Amino acid sequence: MLGSTHGTLTTDFRARVEACGETPRTAVHSTTGPAATADGAVDVSGRPLTADVPDLDRFFRPESVAVIGASDAEGRPNTGITRQLMAWAERVGARLHPVHPTRASVFGLPCRTSVADLPEPVDLAVLLVADPLPVIEELAEAKVKFAVAFASGFAETGEAGAAAQTRLAAAVRRSGMRLLGPNTNLNAFQEFREDLDGPAIALITQSGHQGRPLYALQELGIRLSHWAPTGNEADLETADFISYFAGRPEVGAIACYVEGLKDGRSFLLAADRAARSGVPVVAVKVGRTEAGARTAASHTGKLTGADTVVDAALRQFGVIRVDGLDELQDTAALLARARRPQADGVVVYSISGGTGAHFCDLATEAGLHLPTLSPAKQDELHQWIPAYLNVANPVDNGGHPVGDWRGRKIIDAILADPAVGVLICPITGPFPPMSDKLAQDLVDAAEQTDKLICVVWGSPVGTEEAYRTTLLGSSRVATFRTFANCITAVRAYFDHHRFTSGYRSPFADAPRTPSPSYRKAQALMRPGQQLSEHAAKQLLRAYGIRVPREQLVTSAAAAVRAAGLVGYPVVMKASGPQLAHKTELGLVKVGLTSASQIRDAYRELTDIARYEDVPLDGILVCQMVERGVEMVVGVTQDELFGPTVTVGLGGVLVEVLRDAAVRVPPFGEDQARAMLTELRGHALLEGVRGAPPADVDALVEVVLRVQRMALELGDCLSELDVNPLMVLPRGQGAVALDALAICR
Amino acid sequence: MLGSTHGTLTTDFRARVEACGETPRTAVHSTTGPAATADGAVDVSGRPLTADVPDLDRFFRPESVAVIGASDAEGRPNTGITRQLMAWAERVGARLHPVHPTRASVFGLPCRTSVADLPEPVDLAVLLVADPLPVIEELAEAKVKFAVAFASGFAETGEAGAAAQTRLAAAVRRSGMRLLGPNTNLNAFQEFREDLDGPAIALITQSGHQGRPLYALQELGIRLSHWAPTGNEADLETADFISYFAGRPEVGAIACYVEGLKDGRSFLLAADRAARSGVPVVAVKVGRTEAGARTAASHTGKLTGADTVVDAALRQFGVIRVDGLDELQDTAALLARARRPQADGVVVYSISGGTGAHFCDLATEAGLHLPTLSPAKQDELHQWIPAYLNVANPVDNGGHPVGDWRGRKIIDAILADPAVGVLICPITGPFPPMSDKLAQDLVDAAEQTDKLICVVWGSPVGTEEAYRTTLLGSSRVATFRTFANCITAVRAYFDHHRFTSGYRSPFADAPRTPSPSYRKAQALMRPGQQLSEHAAKQLLRAYGIRVPREQLVTSAAAAVRAAGLVGYPVVMKASGPQLAHKTELGLVKVGLTSASQIRDAYRELTDIARYEDVPLDGILVCQMVERGVEMVVGVTQDELFGPTVTVGLGGVLVEVLRDAAVRVPPFGEDQARAMLTELRGHALLEGVRGAPPADVDALVEVVLRVQRMALELGDCLSELDVNPLMVLPRGQGAVALDALAICR
Repeated sequence: MLGSTHGTLTTDFRARVEACGETPRTAVHSTTGPAATADGAVDVSGRPLTADVPDLDRFFRPESVAVIGASDAEGRPNTGITRQLMAWAERVGARLHPVHPTRASVFGLPCRTSVADLPEPVDLAVLLVADPLPVIEELAEAKVKFAVAFASGFAETGEAGAAAQTRLAAAVRRSGMRLLGPNTNLNAFQEFREDLDGPAIALITQSGHQGRPLYALQELGIRLSHWAPTGNEADLETADFISYFAGRPEVGAIACYVEGLKDGRSFLLAADRAARSGVPVVAVKVGRTEAGARTAASHTGKLTGADTVVDAALRQFGVIRVDGLDELQDTAALLARARRPQADGVVVYSISGGTGAHFCDLATEAGLHLPTLSPAKQDELHQWIPAYLNVANPVDNGGHPVGDWRGRKIIDAILADPAVGVLICPITGPFPPMSDKLAQDLVDAAEQTDKLICVVWGSPVGTEEAYRTTLLGSSRVATFRTFANCITAVRAYFDHHRFTSGYRSPFADAPRTPSPSYRKAQALMRPGQQLSEHAAKQLLRAYGIRVPREQLVTSAAAAVRAAGLVGYPVVMKASGPQLAHKTELGLVKVGLTSASQIRDAYRELTDIARYEDVPLDGILVCQMVERGVEMVVGVTQDELFGPTVTVGLGGVLVEVLRDAAVRVPPFGEDQARAMLTELRGHALLEGVRGAPPADVDALVEVVLRVQRMALELGDCLSELDVNPLMVLPRGQGAVALDALAICR
Repeated sequence: MLGSTHGTLTTDFRARVEACGETPRTAVHSTTGPAATADGAVDVSGRPLTADVPDLDRFFRPESVAVIGASDAEGRPNTGITRQLMAWAERVGARLHPVHPTRASVFGLPCRTSVADLPEPVDLAVLLVADPLPVIEELAEAKVKFAVAFASGFAETGEAGAAAQTRLAAAVRRSGMRLLGPNTNLNAFQEFREDLDGPAIALITQSGHQGRPLYALQELGIRLSHWAPTGNEADLETADFISYFAGRPEVGAIACYVEGLKDGRSFLLAADRAARSGVPVVAVKVGRTEAGARTAASHTGKLTGADTVVDAALRQFGVIRVDGLDELQDTAALLARARRPQADGVVVYSISGGTGAHFCDLATEAGLHLPTLSPAKQDELHQWIPAYLNVANPVDNGGHPVGDWRGRKIIDAILADPAVGVLICPITGPFPPMSDKLAQDLVDAAEQTDKLICVVWGSPVGTEEAYRTTLLGSSRVATFRTFANCITAVRAYFDHHRFTSGYRSPFADAPRTPSPSYRKAQALMRPGQQLSEHAAKQLLRAYGIRVPREQLVTSAAAAVRAAGLVGYPVVMKASGPQLAHKTELGLVKVGLTSASQIRDAYRELTDIARYEDVPLDGILVCQMVERGVEMVVGVTQDELFGPTVTVGLGGVLVEVLRDAAVRVPPFGEDQARAMLTELRGHALLEGVRGAPPADVDALVEVVLRVQRMALELGDCLSELDVNPLMVLPRGQGAVALDALAICR
């Protein structure tokens, strides 16, 4: 439960921190919180390896419901809510039992004075009371399975509210019941249209209002199956719903609006489950900026984590991140309904060369693959399209052929091409004699193909018959209003299928027991301190990461002896527990080739250290390492995800360009390699200006060893910074020339 | 007319090329093409300094129109067009004269057999004939002012078509008449709604179909005044319409859909004119990718230019580039109607904390300024908004206050804050009891303020009354459908006003006569050759750019003597006219400190050159220059804009990261400085890791001198690459350590 922001876990977390440097991590973590799974498997950091999947069938389709605080008194807010709940219960076929201390009946239904008086064990209790805490125990005794708490005034309001939420969460945990909320609303009890076909979108939102436009998609013919408005997530969280929805046959895609995550690990385990099930998860995750993160935190009382880490974690587990609710709608709708692509080729088909050129430009820039159609296919298309028009892709029909029998022939011919996985038809401006027929042809063709057909209805008006009736009436055609959203969704479609088809859960391969390195490393850890360069390098060596030959000395004479052992030329550096920015301070001397140079350097380094008032544990005499590509590899702690591993370009570049890639453990070699190709400057590793290619395999190995270190040392290692890691030419390895480690 | 793709200019262009290295540029350019202006002022490169502004009043509002090829025969395409033109002529109050060789009347109007028989000199002739060329002379004789040619089959179809277009353009130029087209359509003769108020959008599109959604904006209450569908632009081009519209009082913004530019300079002059008039130009410019550029070129037969250059040029002249037609609509509509901002602060006001957090996150990321409201203002807002809700910005009203009298009070209080320039209210999901009243309050408030009010109507349905009637019924509220488009438009709004308020035309300061450097430089140019490093550096020196002390020698003994003059330590390099990648070939020796080292180096360099078969003009013995920041500064020729100036990070970085900024001359010191801050690695110039700040003033001076060189040498200098330019610590200047120059 590293970095959890969930109050109830604080005790476990403290226990770990206090144990730093004393006990193997696994022992500390043998008792885990609510994220512990049925099989209880944990990795070496003590965190669960599989998602906890709550059975929410009776939550969404209860047979009996109690409404605590029900009312039919005119003007009371609970009266409106009670009325809505009664209507909903009737729709889903649930028996509803009002509970109120002083009423005999509510809207004609017999009203119980307390939970204890309920005539049957209910599946779901809806708490309309201002303080749900006192009711929890009663509900548990009455064997209620689920509760929903609407009350606000918890973690979203500040410290006192957060404490109240912690107490509520603890009571819920003790009860064995599951709770949605607090600070949630009626959205879980919305009516869903049952006349719509095709796989559905299941919706999870931390803000009810932000889910409204997705719910409204039903008015455009897009099916929704569930809506989980999770509010403050004192118990049930976004991850629980993802895990549950991933196993529901009617769910084609999961759409999430997330302001903050309660726990990084449980979210990733849920995403992993969805990825293994092939169910796409599309998410808006607020927190691109500090300001947004702060505002979001104050809204539902959650933390949002460092955005670069969130972004990387989502990508690692195939979650498709979008920024706008419109993109969320369009992408989730497409992913829910489109079948697996048969080819990666996209053909753009339009009634105007301008439209084709424009769309093709934006689609190509977004990374879609627009293959040139074969000469044979082009000849086939030219049967119906005038010879002077371009049909190579984009296919420009010039307008007229769509108005008659040729229109459908063209569409079928494009779809029949084995290189084509998606046909996109942007209809920029409606011109009914052409566009109405074109829309109908596309809808008809979509019924007879497994390939994806997308239409962009570019008119800003949106009341046109061809749009409202023909296109939105089809569950097989994906209809968009803008080029950009269509391109985003189609890209996500290919990305999702590419990701899941090659997906292997990194949790399957996560280390469960400490490596032999762990005990050696433990002996080097100094809780609460920054290690000296020399000690930090020994830590690296414990994990099999190469460091230069070096000796720590405390006299000029010893330095000269050390140089003889290390081998000339040497580097000399001041070494001390708090030392950073050695180069800037003049505390590094390179290329020393004689005893006299070494004696001079020793004197100079100790003089500077004295002048700068820097405590030293000695002077390091190090082997000179030949030139390679300077990289940095590091570990930092994220409040949401725990330890993260970073790799970037080293030297001045890391400071100036911040060209770095980050991953959340566990991850495999594939991701370690992907980190390198993500770097803007990755070509440096391939060798530029005559430099030999760098030993990328060795670099990848270092990244994986650092990950192992991060997992085993957990939060006891607050920070590790190997800078530079000199990556030598291929076959020659990589050497950590300097390192900084901070113990907690 | 550098880099023009307009066939008729080829002769001038050739003349320049042939004159390279012989005649001062101004002499060559004293006769310019159609882009020469009334005052005829040209810069030192011979290109015009002010836009040619055609008087198009009679084009858009003709008093008399001739339709050449008019028809009323059933089933002929021209019949439909004639009918539409007659309706249009009636609307605009123009007299229409059909012309057809064999008809006596068309739709009851007397038909003339030829242009010569027209009863009056007409303002506009619409050519419905397959080949407009033969008619041009007749029209000119009849003193027709404007013609429109619908015929296709010109430059968009390939070489033969391009030749036909060149002939047509030449005939038009001789005639003195102005022509729209060929390959255009009826869009110039659309009906515009006259019941809409507020400043209008004037539309220019190279593809008629792509203009449709903008034209449809009128159905959403947004006023349009003109539509220029420019087609192949054999004569009148996008730039002409921008220049004309920029002077029309009813035009609030110009929206362009551009596939390719006919001439870079004329476009920039038009944009400059619009910037000086304060009229925003918003443009989709196809060609982000090679594929898009190619497809666009084949559509209207124009070139699209290197996209990085196009992008920079548009920014230099304040043109707002967007990618989607939806963004074009939304941004142009906002810019047309919003008044000048009174403050740069944006307040986000919503009925849900989630919406506020989400919008604020995206807006902040896009660079909008969301100030925290003052405590006094927050207290004021808390009169109406419950105390536990955040009103610092975003302002979260929690819902209820918008349903009653408090709603308007809150809006007015926000607008009254002097820090607030824009109020944005995202209404994510409609909830009529709240959102209808909120929409009306916003519309009412907008009538009484000069500040900008934006609403995002987030429902995907879009048929709601509050949206269709209340919001779209207001010309004072800017209504959007997505967060992203609202943010894009508001950012463009601030960018536009910031740009125009500080705008000074660079054409005003462009050099008109050659500098004294020019004659020196001319003597060094070698047409058709790449200069040796030594010669290239002399060229730089001619323009006052510092190079190291150096001597070119052809013997070891001379090298030793040169080193004495240059001063130890020295660098030695092979020098030859075709030499590149000297470092990779081992043809550079640095840090030579003695005569014997120099003799060895001389032998080694000449040996390598012999082995690699590289012809040398000698060996350069150069002064060693102390370390600084390595940059590159260069000139390349763009087919659309002529010479461009680039500055970037040097060394390995320029190859790996391509971190460079480009500008199209003429530009001033402000732009040269802006180039540096655009660089991702610009912090390197400020000094990192204890390095001193670099002499940025000297670097800027080099960029401006290179610009001068580019302007004066024009296309005779195909390419210049100063790499590296060593920028020394502040106050110490910048030195060109190596240079490559290719003459044309």
